[in-house]
Amino acid sequence: MHPMHTSRLHWWFTLLLALPLLAAAADPLPSWKDGPSRSAIESFVNAVTNAGGKDYVPVPERIAVFDNDGTLWSEQPMYFEVLFALDEVKRLAPQHPEWEQQQPFKAVLEDDQHALAESGMDGLLKIVAATHSGMSNEDFIAHARSWLASATHPRSKKPYTEMVFQPMLELLAYLRANGFKTYIVSGGEVSFMRAFAEEVYGIPPEQVIGTTLDARFQDDSGELSIQRLPKLVHNDDGPGKPVSIDSIIGRRPILAFGNSDGDLQMLQWTMAGQGKRFAGLVHHTDATREWAYDRESKVGRLDKALDAAEKGNWTVVDMAGEWSRVYPFEQD
Amino acid sequence: MHPMHTSRLHWWFTLLLALPLLAAAADPLPSWKDGPSRSAIESFVNAVTNAGGKDYVPVPERIAVFDNDGTLWSEQPMYFEVLFALDEVKRLAPQHPEWEQQQPFKAVLEDDQHALAESGMDGLLKIVAATHSGMSNEDFIAHARSWLASATHPRSKKPYTEMVFQPMLELLAYLRANGFKTYIVSGGEVSFMRAFAEEVYGIPPEQVIGTTLDARFQDDSGELSIQRLPKLVHNDDGPGKPVSIDSIIGRRPILAFGNSDGDLQMLQWTMAGQGKRFAGLVHHTDATREWAYDRESKVGRLDKALDAAEKGNWTVVDMAGEWSRVYPFEQD
Repeated sequence: MHPMHTSRLHWWFTLLLALPLLAAAADPLPSWKDGPSRSAIESFVNAVTNAGGKDYVPVPERIAVFDNDGTLWSEQPMYFEVLFALDEVKRLAPQHPEWEQQQPFKAVLEDDQHALAESGMDGLLKIVAATHSGMSNEDFIAHARSWLASATHPRSKKPYTEMVFQPMLELLAYLRANGFKTYIVSGGEVSFMRAFAEEVYGIPPEQVIGTTLDARFQDDSGELSIQRLPKLVHNDDGPGKPVSIDSIIGRRPILAFGNSDGDLQMLQWTMAGQGKRFAGLVHHTDATREWAYDRESKVGRLDKALDAAEKGNWTVVDMAGEWSRVYPFEQD
Repeated sequence: MHPMHTSRLHWWFTLLLALPLLAAAADPLPSWKDGPSRSAIESFVNAVTNAGGKDYVPVPERIAVFDNDGTLWSEQPMYFEVLFALDEVKRLAPQHPEWEQQQPFKAVLEDDQHALAESGMDGLLKIVAATHSGMSNEDFIAHARSWLASATHPRSKKPYTEMVFQPMLELLAYLRANGFKTYIVSGGEVSFMRAFAEEVYGIPPEQVIGTTLDARFQDDSGELSIQRLPKLVHNDDGPGKPVSIDSIIGRRPILAFGNSDGDLQMLQWTMAGQGKRFAGLVHHTDATREWAYDRESKVGRLDKALDAAEKGNWTVVDMAGEWSRVYPFEQD
């Protein structure tokens, strides 16, 4: 055979091999298998972006809100921010010798799960206050970034910022490509999420809404800072979510995605608006690749919102059946 | 002369007449006379948008914050929102027969300026609470819009939304054309400002930050609403401004514009960041076209911030000398 023919053949062969890749590049949602969720997402986006169609929504009103824990990244065995707070207690312990004798800090320092569990919500709030306040907001974000850069998840041994859901990253990008403004509206503390949301999710700080602590502007002989105070001013969970959406965004979203009962009111508020709407729930059904839990879980309980989804025909994503890939680091 | 020549001449003549208009269309700041403020604004914008230059700022970080009362619209003889509240007391009076005997409402209903002044800040807060809460946020915005559509300013007899500063409208548009995100950060109540900010200033609701009342998500047998409560949760004045900027935007602005001591900390916070920065003050020096007031004024006092501006070489806009037009409705 003439060399030129070999070369041509090679070219065709390469193209043939590349075809699935080209197809994947053209598909904005490659990790979403064909199924009811993918189809519901696509038909919603097509409807609201179809200029002249009856469901058309102008670009400025395309507001999409996403819970974070359990919706954009995993939340087992415990909310990652709580794991951060526990690690911070250990980092800060040398500055607090009194913690050696003081609960719930003693339990954290001794890895005493039983005593820690016994300290309950009250103990957890003490840990959050001690690790999330008493410093400038800039310093806090630096600590959060430093932890995220080095800490690893107890099971996967991966950095927490890799425990994000590949299909949700694709969904965020797909919505933005269709003129949506994507927001996080989460029970997580707002600065903790801002420490990674832009890099990991492509969501800028001004589109991150969360639980907030009180803060004070400090002028220390010309050295200005925003100091974090140990007082909760907004708990961005349950009914707190539509309240913060209304207060900070000032528009009703047309799409909302959550995964637990803490997202119920945000989903209801989204669906109660005029015109076409979308409500989605990530249903954790995959004990192999992620975790399987819903109505009985202590973390991310999905019970009332699952009933509401069934009643309201919301989209419930079966993680095990509808996602071809859960995390970005998985092999195809 | 051949008709064609006449027609050609006419064409040239028309073009000649249109030249100043074309020049005006090319100038994004036609109401800013040549002078120190215009030149400071232009050189700042040129510096931060000059890709490859030492002062270049990437688009997402081009955050510009503006006070509202006295900076984007007038604030004399009294903050317009207070005038709204006084009118609302009259509108709501039939539902509150007890107000006829109860201060400060009695004073408002009887136009008794003396008794109203005597009721002081405490009285004013009662009036604000009675007119700004006890209803859904949607209803409140509808009331604000209805007032703005019909009420007129006592001196100009113009709608309040026409008492906006033409040069500042031009500045907002100029900044946005240069990749800036323009925000309002004001002591005004956030929903009151959202009632007109998008239409009048081109600033969408999610870029309006202000004083906020507490709110509650209400589910009235499936009828959902955000109910406004008579409790202040954030006073967006003075040190409250950098706090809300940090909490809601999560980035430090590179440009801030105010007009009073209530803007001092926002301006300081903006200037204390890294890189090139801009701080501006609208100085009310025009007793003829607007009002002239500063260090001694009860409304919009400009005293400490004026000292800080002199010390820090901030831009102080001499309204009388530097603006060729104050309001859009003025004739050239």
